[in-house]
Amino acid sequence: MNCEIICVGTELLLGDIVNTNAQYLSQKLSYAGIDVYHQIVVGDNLERLVEAISIASKRADIIITTGGLGPTDDDITRYGIAKALGVGVVLDEHSLEKIKERFVRSGRPMPFINERQAYIPAGSKAIENNNGTAPGIIGEYDSKIYIALPGPPREMKPMFEEQILPYLIQKSNYTIKSRTLKVIGVGESALQEKLGDIMLKQKNPTIALYAKEGEVHIRITSKEKNSNEADKKIKEIEHKIICILENNVYGYDDDSLESVVNDLLQKRKLTVSFAESCTGGMISSRFTNVPNASASFLNGIVCYSNEAKINILGVKRETIEKYGAVSMETAGEMAMCIRKLSKTDIGISVTGIAGPTGGTKIKPIGLCYIGIDTGNEVKVFSNIFNGDRNKIRRWATTRALDILRRTIVENL
Amino acid sequence: MNCEIICVGTELLLGDIVNTNAQYLSQKLSYAGIDVYHQIVVGDNLERLVEAISIASKRADIIITTGGLGPTDDDITRYGIAKALGVGVVLDEHSLEKIKERFVRSGRPMPFINERQAYIPAGSKAIENNNGTAPGIIGEYDSKIYIALPGPPREMKPMFEEQILPYLIQKSNYTIKSRTLKVIGVGESALQEKLGDIMLKQKNPTIALYAKEGEVHIRITSKEKNSNEADKKIKEIEHKIICILENNVYGYDDDSLESVVNDLLQKRKLTVSFAESCTGGMISSRFTNVPNASASFLNGIVCYSNEAKINILGVKRETIEKYGAVSMETAGEMAMCIRKLSKTDIGISVTGIAGPTGGTKIKPIGLCYIGIDTGNEVKVFSNIFNGDRNKIRRWATTRALDILRRTIVENL
Repeated sequence: MNCEIICVGTELLLGDIVNTNAQYLSQKLSYAGIDVYHQIVVGDNLERLVEAISIASKRADIIITTGGLGPTDDDITRYGIAKALGVGVVLDEHSLEKIKERFVRSGRPMPFINERQAYIPAGSKAIENNNGTAPGIIGEYDSKIYIALPGPPREMKPMFEEQILPYLIQKSNYTIKSRTLKVIGVGESALQEKLGDIMLKQKNPTIALYAKEGEVHIRITSKEKNSNEADKKIKEIEHKIICILENNVYGYDDDSLESVVNDLLQKRKLTVSFAESCTGGMISSRFTNVPNASASFLNGIVCYSNEAKINILGVKRETIEKYGAVSMETAGEMAMCIRKLSKTDIGISVTGIAGPTGGTKIKPIGLCYIGIDTGNEVKVFSNIFNGDRNKIRRWATTRALDILRRTIVENL
Repeated sequence: MNCEIICVGTELLLGDIVNTNAQYLSQKLSYAGIDVYHQIVVGDNLERLVEAISIASKRADIIITTGGLGPTDDDITRYGIAKALGVGVVLDEHSLEKIKERFVRSGRPMPFINERQAYIPAGSKAIENNNGTAPGIIGEYDSKIYIALPGPPREMKPMFEEQILPYLIQKSNYTIKSRTLKVIGVGESALQEKLGDIMLKQKNPTIALYAKEGEVHIRITSKEKNSNEADKKIKEIEHKIICILENNVYGYDDDSLESVVNDLLQKRKLTVSFAESCTGGMISSRFTNVPNASASFLNGIVCYSNEAKINILGVKRETIEKYGAVSMETAGEMAMCIRKLSKTDIGISVTGIAGPTGGTKIKPIGLCYIGIDTGNEVKVFSNIFNGDRNKIRRWATTRALDILRRTIVENL
């Protein structure tokens, strides 16, 4: 089965918004074993929408539209589908009830124009929208499936996931399973070399690499009639990859580096504190994205000025004067000071030059020292990151969290 | 003139990446007064690409493709255009030289397959790529313009901006100018009411509202034959809007809230420090995104635990025991303590409940107190933010920076 996605909205053609709906639907459909050969965007223009649907009807089994289901004159999708199919639109009483109820609940009077949202092409079914007023539409005509979804992602996604995807999977005969291994510390090219051509070119399961900032994701995807068989094949490949990459695989699927580090700390009942200079609070901020971070993270100091490093964190003035704020020595002392001051098991520090100014020949922009004090020993890692100010800060943050992760896994 | 954008790449159809190229091109073209009626995505499939180009040729004046210009068998765009036009591909000697030079510079031998990248449809011109090996293609056939751009945004954008856009603007007769006003503290609906229907529905300049997280952008766009006339019309509307919204307009175009706050602080030679609990360093991190933040931001403490609030920041234990860590009283004391400890002119504090757990009836998830101590007075603002953990943290961060901004503008 193959599907064509038609996104309706002049705001997409003006470039006011990026088309995340097309990506979301393509990804979900691909996981479900349904091929997408075309994504189309048209504006709020009936004639062009009808043309797009007519073209899609000739080449796809499933046509999914997003957007254009609102109550205003600009919202033309229901009429576009009806016209392309040569049918009229009819009032769906149940949808009208639901829309009215929604307005009653919100305490606002229903504008008359919202009644339009209850109209659907004759012969279609309305799909309930639990997150907005616009019902979706599903219809089968001449063995083709037509689906219309609302445009706002927060309405579209739950409707697709809960009501459309199960319906489509039931029409397909395959199960697609996938698993993502998250790798840090090995670049994409080095990874290709380590895994080898044979592995990367094999079909079912397929292995795909995706370079992300500071990490690479390996997606293993298996397509089988039997769900257990798909799981088994993925497990085998996963095991092989882990044997090759070992600790460089930090997590799976929805794991983030910070959630993995937080889990490791909590399992070992360890606490941590951060002393940040050039990252300016980014490590603390990223770490506290994780719910329950408070069990392992106690305190951070963003000692942006030298006086803050000396007076608040407790770094010796002589150290900064002799070696500079960006130095191995200062980084090491920062890690010791933050650990002691915060009474945590581990202290992490970062000091560096994020730019755009402040670099010298000996200490170029991108130079970052990351210190870690575990109570048993203090280590400082020297790094040079490329890119603009924020990229350097993000890379330093990722590297600091990864140093923390590896230290826990290997030593604590 | 109207343009159709065809993005080529199976990775788009799999949903592995979001189509930012289509957005970028649509936006640039729309600013240049060129209408886009269709965005199309096809995979690395010659037949479907030829079909897409043929359909586009019937309805658009300009056809722009992105992607598929690499050296591998999957890269089919040059052949697709040639086939749709009924011409052959020919070797462009100059492009071949450039590709070879690029490999020499990088010290790598040129794989034989890269020679393919120097082939273009007969009758077209190659466009130099200063950021990669794939040259672009531009050709005029039967009064239609065909343009092929590389897929990676870091190659595509500079090529478009420097070499394609000037060529297209010269073909068009209008100048499009636009200016964005950035508004905070007034929601989209309230803004619509304040500006009124007449204003929002006027043509040339047009006024469009874009709701962003925590702020709304107002874009004024004018289309004129004369560039000065366009500027003048924009100025008039801008003045009217400022009279209505006053201080709620925090900046223009590329301004960010943090860059505006940093400018205000530096102009008045003021320094600031942050004491963060639930935002976990996000305020410091966002503020230090701005180059030169070190002139106004001296120190931050991420006092995530109560002990850190007491022992490091200096909040009285009794205050936390009596009123709780999330309270007006604690927020006020945190602001005073961070200002004093960091020896800055202003101290800002945030303490709240970001969730997903920890909420009570009296202190629900989303409750955040933001304190500010300017030396003259201490104020605490109570807020309830909706959304998940990270949204609450982001909103609290934005609100804290805006409180700082308004305080400086109004009082300092």
